[in-house]
Amino acid sequence: MPEYAPSLTPAHEAFLRDLFPGDGCVFAPEALNAFSTDASRERAMPWAAVRPETREQVAELLRWADAERMPVYPRARATGQVGNAVPVKGGVAVSLLRMNRILDIDGRDFAAEVEPGVITSDFQAACAEKRLFYPPDPASVKISTMGGNISTCAGGLRAVKYGVTRDWVLGLTAVLPGGSTLVMGGRSHKDVVGLDLKRLFVGAGGKLGIITGVTVKLIPLPETSASVLVGFANLDDCMDGVAAGFGAGLLPCACEFMDATTLSAIRLGSDIPLDAGAQAALLFKFDGTAEGVAAEVRRLTDALGPTGPLSVEVGQGAEEEAIWAVRRDISPASYRLRPHKISEDLSVPRGRVPQLVAAAQAVGREFGLPVLCYGHLGDGNIHTNVMHDRAVPGDEDKAHRVKDRLFKAALDLGGTISGEHGTGLTKAPYVAGQLGPEQLRLMEQVRRAFDPHEIMNPGKGW
Amino acid sequence: MPEYAPSLTPAHEAFLRDLFPGDGCVFAPEALNAFSTDASRERAMPWAAVRPETREQVAELLRWADAERMPVYPRARATGQVGNAVPVKGGVAVSLLRMNRILDIDGRDFAAEVEPGVITSDFQAACAEKRLFYPPDPASVKISTMGGNISTCAGGLRAVKYGVTRDWVLGLTAVLPGGSTLVMGGRSHKDVVGLDLKRLFVGAGGKLGIITGVTVKLIPLPETSASVLVGFANLDDCMDGVAAGFGAGLLPCACEFMDATTLSAIRLGSDIPLDAGAQAALLFKFDGTAEGVAAEVRRLTDALGPTGPLSVEVGQGAEEEAIWAVRRDISPASYRLRPHKISEDLSVPRGRVPQLVAAAQAVGREFGLPVLCYGHLGDGNIHTNVMHDRAVPGDEDKAHRVKDRLFKAALDLGGTISGEHGTGLTKAPYVAGQLGPEQLRLMEQVRRAFDPHEIMNPGKGW
Repeated sequence: MPEYAPSLTPAHEAFLRDLFPGDGCVFAPEALNAFSTDASRERAMPWAAVRPETREQVAELLRWADAERMPVYPRARATGQVGNAVPVKGGVAVSLLRMNRILDIDGRDFAAEVEPGVITSDFQAACAEKRLFYPPDPASVKISTMGGNISTCAGGLRAVKYGVTRDWVLGLTAVLPGGSTLVMGGRSHKDVVGLDLKRLFVGAGGKLGIITGVTVKLIPLPETSASVLVGFANLDDCMDGVAAGFGAGLLPCACEFMDATTLSAIRLGSDIPLDAGAQAALLFKFDGTAEGVAAEVRRLTDALGPTGPLSVEVGQGAEEEAIWAVRRDISPASYRLRPHKISEDLSVPRGRVPQLVAAAQAVGREFGLPVLCYGHLGDGNIHTNVMHDRAVPGDEDKAHRVKDRLFKAALDLGGTISGEHGTGLTKAPYVAGQLGPEQLRLMEQVRRAFDPHEIMNPGKGW
Repeated sequence: MPEYAPSLTPAHEAFLRDLFPGDGCVFAPEALNAFSTDASRERAMPWAAVRPETREQVAELLRWADAERMPVYPRARATGQVGNAVPVKGGVAVSLLRMNRILDIDGRDFAAEVEPGVITSDFQAACAEKRLFYPPDPASVKISTMGGNISTCAGGLRAVKYGVTRDWVLGLTAVLPGGSTLVMGGRSHKDVVGLDLKRLFVGAGGKLGIITGVTVKLIPLPETSASVLVGFANLDDCMDGVAAGFGAGLLPCACEFMDATTLSAIRLGSDIPLDAGAQAALLFKFDGTAEGVAAEVRRLTDALGPTGPLSVEVGQGAEEEAIWAVRRDISPASYRLRPHKISEDLSVPRGRVPQLVAAAQAVGREFGLPVLCYGHLGDGNIHTNVMHDRAVPGDEDKAHRVKDRLFKAALDLGGTISGEHGTGLTKAPYVAGQLGPEQLRLMEQVRRAFDPHEIMNPGKGW
């Protein structure tokens, strides 16, 4: 076990005040509160928080932190679901939110350079103004940052067609413990010189260094899109429907799924453009030229015919927005069933989604808790919400037992305990059930090549 | 510097004969010849060559090789352009060609499992029978293997839309020096648990271990395709044409470029469907639904209009094949100019391709050698062929000086010395010009986590 500084000394504090003048650093507990948690609601207080504005400040910080064995916790908008940004060993929280410039969006290179603190949807909007497209779209896209998305290898709805954040990163600048700066990759779309260190940073959860510069690949903005919401009488029909859609040679940019429990929660609050008897639903989205999208919608509806859908709703423009309101309503709707949730992001080989959903529904019944299953069926990444009420004695414990069973079900089906969120604090105890000891040993050794004293985000799972 | 076994002892030979019975191992120099080179024509003799048929044999081999400090050189069809498979330190060449089974192609999971020695186009054909698609298509696709493609992170024509090999690898099984087996990833399309070790193997050139199992992602096979060959009066018009095409919101699955020297070489041998005055050409390919492809071709030809192309040839079916014959003819046609070539695969930010081509043409003129520039304009990856005649005194030396200048030009333009081929032997001296000492140090440390005695493919560049 590495040894860390036991506390922040007056000399440490003076160093930080000098490096981050004014409100560039904070020490007061009430101010540090904001740096203690993330969307997981796990909580631990850092000893200080700093707000660098330049790479040089980050380099000086990490030179000092490495020498002082000071734990360092990078963070941005703290939308992470698993406590990965929570400073469990004290030390210094580092907010990258002041490094938030879009430096260049280049329609000839089909590449853009940004600082890590840029909000992803702000960046996407700036790209769209130039008719360029950065596809990754985690659910948090309107509040999370490019740097945060890269640190978690964010996925999202469009991954089925466009892949995940990893697939769009061309270059990264990162500062390592000790203060050296790595400039990895650049604007070249293809580059096979050297081990692919930059993509090792993607999804590394801040364990290798602090990302200070980001270069991503862009593509032309698709001309238009259309979406199709399809209701089915049961889960089997629904899975036949998705097979028919993909069997027709179509690659939608989204293919979302909602199970019976999810639909029941949504229906408690709003009318939705879906047959009232539907016990499962699919939501497809296509993008491309107007003619191409129209053809794909026709191919899909033709292919779905034999699977006997109860309802097929096609939408473009404002109608497309109305269809997607159903999907966006899931998270708020879930609380209509119970006031608390444990939200997971299991991922399995796509053909095994029916078994995962059946297992989730069965274990929910066994423990008497509603379990919502929904999400990215197109890539086998199903969100499960285990709803419960902490005011009911035993409910929270039951919810955790349901979660444990779901993790086991995903692994038994050849899947993973995390398709999108990472492991951070809340899933750390489960990582060894997925990765063997040899992989864990190698990850530790690789980490130490970058961070020999393990000052970067210590105390988290792989 | 690591120390290696100085030779193969009788005990070593007995071990190998026992582990690889019959023609599973070879020692005779005439038989070893076949294992001494690759497409680079660099050459060095191994002391032995083995042909494992199982992962267990590979594990036993690497347990022994690690203990004996025996250099190990994995290889398959030896289509590599840079000497990466050449056994420069002797040792044992390991042919993976007998591990060549397609284990499963699954249209529900949209995933396939293969052994490393499967020929990539054989695998693609087997996928196509199930209306499934594995997009990566290096020029060598009909003779190279899945394992070889992964070790070089092979690119190809379709990378502009579909990315490179890295983007399609979901899981790898690899045996490490010492004999342990890593099972990384699997059939889940999304997985963010742990550092992404499997994709570290992609493009690692056999330096980390031997890949014995491969799981890749598939998508539905597109319904149809069409291609468009466009001739331009000069390079500037051509670059305006590519900007107009992408500016119209189109994402072709290929966007190839041919410069004036390339066209002149092709024209020496065959009539081509291109205006006789064209000094630069673009070749676009679109895939998708019939209606979508037709619309994209219309959008493209409309967008190209204002850029004043000299000719626009659209082809589908047999006519599409005829158009692509032009592109396929480049490599044989190049020898019409001179009998020898130095072939490089520079890659630059896409908008800087005109500068790279201009620099190549200028340096070719300066040294009096024809330099062909062609290839994957859509991702900025331009192949340069420096043609020369070794029978002409000084010509080969000139060609190498041209190559050096081209490498410098690519790096000065923010590019890379290799977009597709890797560095192996022939580009090893240039790697330090691209990667800084800190990156090289980290790569060495990461390598040693997998291979502490550096027995895997020693003597090659990063």
